[in-house]
Amino acid sequence: MKQQFAVIGLGRFGGSICKTLSDLGHEVLAIDKNENKVNEFADIVTQAVQMDSTDEQALRDIGIRNMDHVIVAIGDDIQASILTTLILKDLNVPYITVKAQNDYHERVLEKIGATKIVHPERDMGVRIAHHLLSKNVMDFIELSPDYSLVEIKAGDKMVGKSLLELNIRAKYGCNIMAIKSKDRLNISPKAEDVIHKDDILVVIGANKDISRFEENEGA
Amino acid sequence: MKQQFAVIGLGRFGGSICKTLSDLGHEVLAIDKNENKVNEFADIVTQAVQMDSTDEQALRDIGIRNMDHVIVAIGDDIQASILTTLILKDLNVPYITVKAQNDYHERVLEKIGATKIVHPERDMGVRIAHHLLSKNVMDFIELSPDYSLVEIKAGDKMVGKSLLELNIRAKYGCNIMAIKSKDRLNISPKAEDVIHKDDILVVIGANKDISRFEENEGA
Ligand SMILES: Nc1ncnc2c1ncn2[C@@H]1O[C@H](COP(=O)(O)OP(=O)(O)OP(=O)(O)O)[C@@H](O)[C@H]1O
Ligand SMILES: Nc1ncnc2c1ncn2[C@@H]1O[C@H](COP(=O)(O)OP(=O)(O)OP(=O)(O)O)[C@@H](O)[C@H]1O
Ligand SMILES: [Ca+2]
Ligand SMILES: [Ca+2]
Ligand SMILES: [Ca+2]
Ligand SMILES: [Ca+2]
Repeated sequence: MKQQFAVIGLGRFGGSICKTLSDLGHEVLAIDKNENKVNEFADIVTQAVQMDSTDEQALRDIGIRNMDHVIVAIGDDIQASILTTLILKDLNVPYITVKAQNDYHERVLEKIGATKIVHPERDMGVRIAHHLLSKNVMDFIELSPDYSLVEIKAGDKMVGKSLLELNIRAKYGCNIMAIKSKDRLNISPKAEDVIHKDDILVVIGANKDISRFEENEGA
Repeated sequence: MKQQFAVIGLGRFGGSICKTLSDLGHEVLAIDKNENKVNEFADIVTQAVQMDSTDEQALRDIGIRNMDHVIVAIGDDIQASILTTLILKDLNVPYITVKAQNDYHERVLEKIGATKIVHPERDMGVRIAHHLLSKNVMDFIELSPDYSLVEIKAGDKMVGKSLLELNIRAKYGCNIMAIKSKDRLNISPKAEDVIHKDDILVVIGANKDISRFEENEGA
């Protein structure tokens, strides 16, 4: 079922949520008090409105109560974030996700009944710290404490070889699930498929096998 | 091998990187021009120093050249971010990760040779948008703007059926790459493998196809 979303605050975080939800085919009402921001998003979302979200009447007037889910992505102005959340709660918006700036902000948001509180900078710091530690790993999903699915940059010595020749499965015990090339994503790699320069491999396997693979074959 | 990291800019993003690297046992030199920030991190990292990172001599004096990897997590002051990156490059720091504020900032950073450029708010916006759409999506990797690899909770009507019977590939155009069961991880699922209650499926495909699959078959 199509859901109705509103995003309040079109900074980098809120803006990225708008774009992603729109790309995935959802209705998005985008709100910011800054007119430039609103214009920037006018062609991306279903509707973009300039308003101050601490103005309860204005929120009522645009029909915020009909939304299934409102995301409050106001940053520096913690007071505006809190007041906006309070109003949304009063208007019985069923699901309210709010970006928190710090622990104090989070505690207040919890108290007033935000459904979900997120810390994008903090959480991304954790993810990126993990990426820094292993430079070939572009992204990962932890499948279990021992198994992962990772994106790894293919090393030079893989280039020009087919999966059959590379024989990754036998040599390292892990499987290549997809190959990302510059202009193509191959999601069912075959034995005869050849690795090109700058390809990124999506590999599944035991962490220790993936580490061994990455050390020997990664970029 | 233990690596030497320096983090410049102790905002939420840079601060989170410091904490995570320290927790994982790495040496971290934390730098900010704001004394309060420096004091906040003094007990967390190996060394915390108050300085303006656009001061080349000061960076030399604290031995920034000995670092394996420097992370520039300065935010609003784009000029300071660029100048700092330039200096680090001049001093031959081998690996420089920089937080970008926008596309213009990114292009400049690329030109002057930053090793890696990150957009924490934007990337987290994408991640959170996916999570908002469904509580069935446990984790995901964005393979391209249109394709993803996601972990999805299997819905009740899949339980007891084999992959052959479910015929996901034909019905939704996406592939099941792995099945996580309570006590087993199946990384090469076969046609006859059966879905159990509470299984989590690792699915690869176009975002539109995955959404459709998830709506119809997810928990
Ligand atoms: N009361 C308000 N009503 C509507 N929009 C608001 C209000 N207060 C702030 N905003 C908008 O919220 C957006 C995000 O705020 P701000 O730039 O402070 O956050 P930020 O944390 O720096 O964002 P990011 O890190 O995601 O780029 C801005 O575009 C701002 O105009
Ligand atoms: N020239 C500089 N030298 C050292 N530190 C600096 C310099 N310029 C800015 N900083 C520090 O960088 C940190 C992050 O900057 P800022 O708060 O503008 O980023 P931000 O994008 O809002 O951060 P976040 O969203 O991660 O919280 C601040 O603590 C600031 O004091
Ligand atoms: Ca801002
Ligand atoms: Ca800030
Ligand atoms: Ca920010
Ligand atoms: Ca990725």
